[in-house]
Amino acid sequence: MNADLLQALPPGRDRRLAHGEALFRAGDAALGLGLVRQGVLELVRTSPEGRRLVLHRAGPGETFAEASLFESHHHCDAIAAVSSLVTVHPAAELRRVARADPGLAWRIAAHLAARLVAERARAERLALPHAADRLLDVLHALPPEPDGTRRLGRSWKSLAAELGLSHEATYRALARLERAGLLRREGGDRVRLPAAATA
Amino acid sequence: MNADLLQALPPGRDRRLAHGEALFRAGDAALGLGLVRQGVLELVRTSPEGRRLVLHRAGPGETFAEASLFESHHHCDAIAAVSSLVTVHPAAELRRVARADPGLAWRIAAHLAARLVAERARAERLALPHAADRLLDVLHALPPEPDGTRRLGRSWKSLAAELGLSHEATYRALARLERAGLLRREGGDRVRLPAAATA
Repeated sequence: MNADLLQALPPGRDRRLAHGEALFRAGDAALGLGLVRQGVLELVRTSPEGRRLVLHRAGPGETFAEASLFESHHHCDAIAAVSSLVTVHPAAELRRVARADPGLAWRIAAHLAARLVAERARAERLALPHAADRLLDVLHALPPEPDGTRRLGRSWKSLAAELGLSHEATYRALARLERAGLLRREGGDRVRLPAAATA
Repeated sequence: MNADLLQALPPGRDRRLAHGEALFRAGDAALGLGLVRQGVLELVRTSPEGRRLVLHRAGPGETFAEASLFESHHHCDAIAAVSSLVTVHPAAELRRVARADPGLAWRIAAHLAARLVAERARAERLALPHAADRLLDVLHALPPEPDGTRRLGRSWKSLAAELGLSHEATYRALARLERAGLLRREGGDRVRLPAAATA
């Protein structure tokens, strides 16, 4: 979240979540704007056929459930992917403060617009027809470490869910990219992208 | 756009666009919030390899370029997919009015939150691994006509771009769905979805 908005927000309520614990479920009354302090919150929808799709993955400093500020109910589950600490800013409270401070509502709108751009970029990535292209797109967007490797910062399984891929398709694509010399796995969540591939 | 927000907006500037004409290009100074009155605006990004990706497709009553209210430049092209009429609400003007009317900024935020939810739904659709699933998902979301058919309301080519599919993959998937009895093409942009398939 933008520091400017963070300072303008009235205090919220902190909530600790154990790994796998739900902050809310689809159908629950809307809590308000969520902010991850520590850990990772996954917004998840499960299809009628039981396919689990991650709609949004919020890490430290990132918001989630923004739309619930203006809606009565949640449309997905919010699950702590690891042990997490989140702050919830109730909608009614934000609306009250925004009435007295027009700048706050404008800052919230600016934040939502930035999230909208990020979601469009995600959709653009998901529209890439090949698993390998989606993976390369994510990996090239990671900042390089001092030793030149890049850290995924999450499990390959979690990345697969985020990209709408099966684990098998993800591992097959990784192996194919490695054979083609487009990446090298360095153990754990670290990869190296040859200079040629970034050109 | 929400009627509530539409009434609260200060007047914008109308602009007529011929088929294929650009309202703005990536890198242009941001115009502000756009609203389609007639026709269709496509927000398009072209990859370095020349692949054309439709990021957003706005029809009558829908907004586009929402994020440009808070940014200095556009990050994609806005092209009229057919002869169109749009209204542009300049950012500076909206900001001035919102300062005097805190309710306007809140309404803009609510609108952006709704767009965010729509973009996530789009990403969810794009995460479906098979072309046929993406197509069925779009077609089942169309309202049935009185005769029971559903009208795409755009070309199959335009839908393919929207779903990140090649035309060939789209036509192959349509043929496969038809052979499987999951849809019937009725000519033009009309299809019929058997009752069994909607269950």
